[in-house]
Amino acid sequence: MITPVLLCGGAGTRLWPLSRKGYPKQFAPLVGDESLFQASARRLAGPGFGAPLVVTAGDFRFLVAEQLMQAGVDPGAILIEPSARNTAPAVLVAAMRLAQDDPQALMLVAPSDHVVPDAAAFRAAVAVGVAPAEAGQIVTFGIRPTHAETGYGWLELESEVAEGAPAPLTRFVEKPDAARAARMFASGRYLWNAGIFLATAETLVAAFRAHAPELMAPVAAALDGARPDLGFLRLDAAAWEGARDISVDYAVMERAPNLSVVPFGAGWSDLGGWDAIWREMGPDDRGLAQSGPVTAIDCADSLLRSESDGLELVCIGLRDVVAVAMPDAVLIADRARAQEVRLAVSALRAKGARQADSFARDHRPWGWFETLAREDRFQVKRIVVRPGGILSLQSHMHRAEHWVVVSGTARVTVDGEERLLTENESVYVPLGAVHRLENPGRLPMVLIEVQTGTYLGEDDIIRYEDLYARS
Amino acid sequence: MITPVLLCGGAGTRLWPLSRKGYPKQFAPLVGDESLFQASARRLAGPGFGAPLVVTAGDFRFLVAEQLMQAGVDPGAILIEPSARNTAPAVLVAAMRLAQDDPQALMLVAPSDHVVPDAAAFRAAVAVGVAPAEAGQIVTFGIRPTHAETGYGWLELESEVAEGAPAPLTRFVEKPDAARAARMFASGRYLWNAGIFLATAETLVAAFRAHAPELMAPVAAALDGARPDLGFLRLDAAAWEGARDISVDYAVMERAPNLSVVPFGAGWSDLGGWDAIWREMGPDDRGLAQSGPVTAIDCADSLLRSESDGLELVCIGLRDVVAVAMPDAVLIADRARAQEVRLAVSALRAKGARQADSFARDHRPWGWFETLAREDRFQVKRIVVRPGGILSLQSHMHRAEHWVVVSGTARVTVDGEERLLTENESVYVPLGAVHRLENPGRLPMVLIEVQTGTYLGEDDIIRYEDLYARS
Repeated sequence: MITPVLLCGGAGTRLWPLSRKGYPKQFAPLVGDESLFQASARRLAGPGFGAPLVVTAGDFRFLVAEQLMQAGVDPGAILIEPSARNTAPAVLVAAMRLAQDDPQALMLVAPSDHVVPDAAAFRAAVAVGVAPAEAGQIVTFGIRPTHAETGYGWLELESEVAEGAPAPLTRFVEKPDAARAARMFASGRYLWNAGIFLATAETLVAAFRAHAPELMAPVAAALDGARPDLGFLRLDAAAWEGARDISVDYAVMERAPNLSVVPFGAGWSDLGGWDAIWREMGPDDRGLAQSGPVTAIDCADSLLRSESDGLELVCIGLRDVVAVAMPDAVLIADRARAQEVRLAVSALRAKGARQADSFARDHRPWGWFETLAREDRFQVKRIVVRPGGILSLQSHMHRAEHWVVVSGTARVTVDGEERLLTENESVYVPLGAVHRLENPGRLPMVLIEVQTGTYLGEDDIIRYEDLYARS
Repeated sequence: MITPVLLCGGAGTRLWPLSRKGYPKQFAPLVGDESLFQASARRLAGPGFGAPLVVTAGDFRFLVAEQLMQAGVDPGAILIEPSARNTAPAVLVAAMRLAQDDPQALMLVAPSDHVVPDAAAFRAAVAVGVAPAEAGQIVTFGIRPTHAETGYGWLELESEVAEGAPAPLTRFVEKPDAARAARMFASGRYLWNAGIFLATAETLVAAFRAHAPELMAPVAAALDGARPDLGFLRLDAAAWEGARDISVDYAVMERAPNLSVVPFGAGWSDLGGWDAIWREMGPDDRGLAQSGPVTAIDCADSLLRSESDGLELVCIGLRDVVAVAMPDAVLIADRARAQEVRLAVSALRAKGARQADSFARDHRPWGWFETLAREDRFQVKRIVVRPGGILSLQSHMHRAEHWVVVSGTARVTVDGEERLLTENESVYVPLGAVHRLENPGRLPMVLIEVQTGTYLGEDDIIRYEDLYARS
């Protein structure tokens, strides 16, 4: 039985505007209808696999739980990192947690933001790694390269790669320059490092003890001090702060002697940029990959995406362009330079544009909301509360709120008085009133909120009680 | 005293998505803060000019009135064409209307969707035309060409063009092919036809009688049967239907012998496409013209526009691109092929996309509204009613409405009961209730409307009374 350990704390900006700090790429449906995280969880489910252990950031815990539920995967545990510490502490805490129950437990560590189209082939490769892992090896899965990529680390083997058999690893090679990448690609003795590996919990803990001993005490203390919170396991923040911010490759993999590689050649991508998305979406014979309401006239070799049904994207005579249109942000880039979107996000941040990091749709423990209109003295929001969701008991100093339920049923409390509202019913929450909103039903509840007041910031809130420990 | 006759009925699609059938380009702030229509009206105001006569379509009459008010121009008359009949009937009806008061009245006919940066120079050119016009000539204003344009008609002169003096016109040349355009441009004896001309009302009526006699009876009948309507003069629809759909150039100008030309060389554009907008906006030394929240990284020779404060447009490594981003529609085109936007609009129409013809913001006699969110069973609108605006007394069969006033004051009537509502007050309009909304105040009134029901189309409306004659 293998426990998948899914790492999904990170937040890249290379896929802006679809991936933002507040909603990183692993949760977005980038290729197909499922998110990368959901696809990762389902790839490592079924015979031979146990319930996954997920390591994520506090901001994403409800997203993780919701997406696993949608994907039909029951999580074993969801560990919450109090702050971002790169992959080494995350892998170590997962290994320590599993070792508590069974030191011989096999764990398969995988990022959750990669694409592996052939899940069966991948599970077959994992099966090949089981024997060496049980024998004390750390088995990495090396991707058979398709080109001389400079954006990945590489794995050097002793001899030519043979599919379907583990081979000893000579060493890790950091991201190479173009000339070196070309030599490695030509030689046939190198694979891409996908950051996926299989080992027993005990083997990994021992490797950390040998090669990154400074991580042992803070990570053990963070796990000891962890407290359960609504089904999540929240690591101790103070102890976690003391753990070094370092990747598992630097901390352990590049130093450990007991490494094997299983080559994998059935297709893989880390979707590290819009050019990779274009490739994975499968461009047609004109080189076009499209999604959403797009009208393309004589375009070629381009990625054209509209991310909203209500947003028509019209393209004429484009070549080698990436265009991603959302109602609050549009990216248009030369396809070869799509990596520079990181610079653009920095520029947006510098000028204070909300779109740099935040989505129009703001995910909360109880559901999500989005702003439909905002002016100086009023704001209109759509609020969606999932079944069972309960907003905090709260009041505002600067605004009154009008609520109109447009779908489902809400339980509303205003200054101690409780009412049930259904579709087409409304309630007024005066300035200063102590109020709460819940969805007691079995369907999502949708509410239109009209706020009026002199100050409309999210920080005008006094929380009296909060199911999600935010008060 | 010259009466400007401003033609603004037409609706082009070459500047989609900013110009749509429901809000054509002359009303949009394309270059600077003023609309082209406003700039045209102000260009022909001041000493020597009387109040303008505007000929427009019924759909645009309130836009015309509002934009003239904003520009500080008092209209003499606004004639409403019951249907589009091209320019000849429009010019003839204006001439007949002015001749009723004074056959010797000088009228300057001008489209309202052109850019003339130097208004003083243009008025000076008009002054040059007064004497020949009073002597019975039709004086056209020919634009000194800056390149061998194939998109315009040309004017052939007897001899080389001399600025600032009227010259006899040999003939009109229809849109030429590239070779002919090049020859004309080189010869120095040709000007562009801008469709602007000066004559007395009597001269023009006589020219129509001589060269397009079939227009006389229907247009005269349409004017005879015209009825005043809230300050507009609405031509008789049945008579107008009988007028031939033909341009003033074909009907009269190409046949009249009494034509003179005054050359004009101080800058003009018909803004016939996004490439022209790019030129008129004055690209910087990288060839970039930008407006709205745009972040451009290493772009050149491109037009980059975001038409909404809440929409960030990010562009990387673009060359020769036109990009126009709106929350409901985005255009990205090779700059040399921006004219093909017409094909794209046809394609959008064919697939039934609302954005082909309609703006998110829908202008009505009393103000405007826009949809903020729309799902199967609910819709949220922002409704802005101008001071004095009154919506019809109406009811709906399939929807109830919740109204929340967020700015200004509303007078609301629901089933005979009248109330004043101000900021932060709300009212419920049940399904079937007979209701009316007015703005009795002196400031714009803004209201958020939440509709719920099984059918939410604009055509679910029974009108009992309507100030604007729509019931």
